[in-house]
Amino acid sequence: MTNTDEIRRGESAVTWSGATDAGLVYVGRIGTPWFDTRDCPRHGRLDGQLCRIEVFDTWVPALRDLADGALLEILYWLHRSRRDVLLQSPRDDGTTRSVFSIRSPLRPNPIATSIVRLEKREDAVLFVRGLDCLDGTPLLDIKPDRTDFVPLAPPKAADFQVGDA
Amino acid sequence: MTNTDEIRRGESAVTWSGATDAGLVYVGRIGTPWFDTRDCPRHGRLDGQLCRIEVFDTWVPALRDLADGALLEILYWLHRSRRDVLLQSPRDDGTTRSVFSIRSPLRPNPIATSIVRLEKREDAVLFVRGLDCLDGTPLLDIKPDRTDFVPLAPPKAADFQVGDA
Repeated sequence: MTNTDEIRRGESAVTWSGATDAGLVYVGRIGTPWFDTRDCPRHGRLDGQLCRIEVFDTWVPALRDLADGALLEILYWLHRSRRDVLLQSPRDDGTTRSVFSIRSPLRPNPIATSIVRLEKREDAVLFVRGLDCLDGTPLLDIKPDRTDFVPLAPPKAADFQVGDA
Repeated sequence: MTNTDEIRRGESAVTWSGATDAGLVYVGRIGTPWFDTRDCPRHGRLDGQLCRIEVFDTWVPALRDLADGALLEILYWLHRSRRDVLLQSPRDDGTTRSVFSIRSPLRPNPIATSIVRLEKREDAVLFVRGLDCLDGTPLLDIKPDRTDFVPLAPPKAADFQVGDA
């Protein structure tokens, strides 16, 4: 856990040991035009700046079927975020919001999700628009956007279960 | 890494040491009506079965501002998934798809994302519809859905940067 930000007025944090329950592997690295968190946009936009997702050699075969133009969901690790904050003050005005009610980068598991458009792929590099993160951010996952994807596996009974009252 | 599934015809996997780069903390546990991965739906639906998200005591204050009816993005850890597969055969027919082009639970970082509707909250428990996972799945994060959220922090210059050619 890296604490790059001081606690603001009204905010609260847990005392946390840093012990973890499961491990992540970085599968690539993201290149963006933003070199300081203060310069990053608050969220990505599909008509935003072109960014590079460089996938590490091991995982390049997992890119095989990505088509230019696809909408992708990108998961990445906000490695500079503190993880112990429960209540945050986004406006730094003494009023607070609980962490699970906002999309702040500061959270117990600082995993960001963004929807991007794949402009083109060159071998291990994806050129995309829609990101919002620091240059050098570790990549965790690439998925087709849920609105753009139909499962290939055969249908299952539970697919059709609608809710009880 | 737990390998609960055998490699199918045509599939390929990496040889991977199991070494990891960052650590996750489980912030809760998900209760669902599905006790075997074979019974889980292929993806969640907002009119689907009612499920319970139980948040661990430490993180309950982070739920404070969640309103009934909200659309939430839930991140959870598919703890039973093998993580070494590059090409998968969802239909088990010898044809394959690369992992980053499908939303299979088997991936290097088996983090699932689903959009759910919060039906109601009772203290540390959220009752939601939209999940697809095994009973007992570890919870990683809760965020407001991106389509339902406007950042509270002041606007920044990069919010308005649109792309180069």
